[in-house]
Amino acid sequence: MKAEVNWNGGMSFTGSGACATHSVVMDAPPAVGGSDNGIRPKELLLHSLAGCTAMDVISILHKMKLEPNRFRVEATATESEEHPKVFTSFHLRYLISGGIPEEKLNRAIELSQTRYCGVSAMFRNFAPVTHEVCYE
Amino acid sequence: MKAEVNWNGGMSFTGSGACATHSVVMDAPPAVGGSDNGIRPKELLLHSLAGCTAMDVISILHKMKLEPNRFRVEATATESEEHPKVFTSFHLRYLISGGIPEEKLNRAIELSQTRYCGVSAMFRNFAPVTHEVCYE
Repeated sequence: MKAEVNWNGGMSFTGSGACATHSVVMDAPPAVGGSDNGIRPKELLLHSLAGCTAMDVISILHKMKLEPNRFRVEATATESEEHPKVFTSFHLRYLISGGIPEEKLNRAIELSQTRYCGVSAMFRNFAPVTHEVCYE
Repeated sequence: MKAEVNWNGGMSFTGSGACATHSVVMDAPPAVGGSDNGIRPKELLLHSLAGCTAMDVISILHKMKLEPNRFRVEATATESEEHPKVFTSFHLRYLISGGIPEEKLNRAIELSQTRYCGVSAMFRNFAPVTHEVCYE
């Protein structure tokens, strides 16, 4: 897999991948010389983590012939204070509505977290990844 | 740090963070039930890695009173074949034009890779992160 980030001036970069129609703009906050015109690079790690496991769960529920009304995943991380600033723990909240049986949802999340989600598997090498389920 | 991904239907999710004006759409390829209408979650890891170190380098060069004409960073990764599919190595290419002295650029990259880039530091816990410099 390959991606490229191109400098736009200031602290802003546009990232594009194999499919150049899907790009992402990154920027830093004004406190470190940026203009706040894009996502922080490190925040993308949280989108990646939440998106990876969320896709797994939707895909597994689909195979179980189940579809939620609404589904979202929150990812939070704690960060170290010393350079290099790294994430020291991750927590995922799976928020769902629409009558999905609890044991089916738990099974889908378990399969994602133990078998399918490569991002969770990578991140577990340096920090714990915990989770909880919330029915909305 | 916190982020949330919201299901759009199919395999598509929109990620938003603390600053909700900056969002990113993720989707899967048709082969796994997606519609290819967004970035793959795992590709975001490469944007994050390249963007994090690229911002460091621009910031350090700025402190050295140096500014390139053009600057981009390519990130490539190799991926395992078994589930969970994880990245097993990363390679960064710093591509620059504009008369930046080689020793200054190398010093900026070294500072990023050894001291400032938290994404590189995290990823090194599970895979090697190598790099090269290309003058364009």
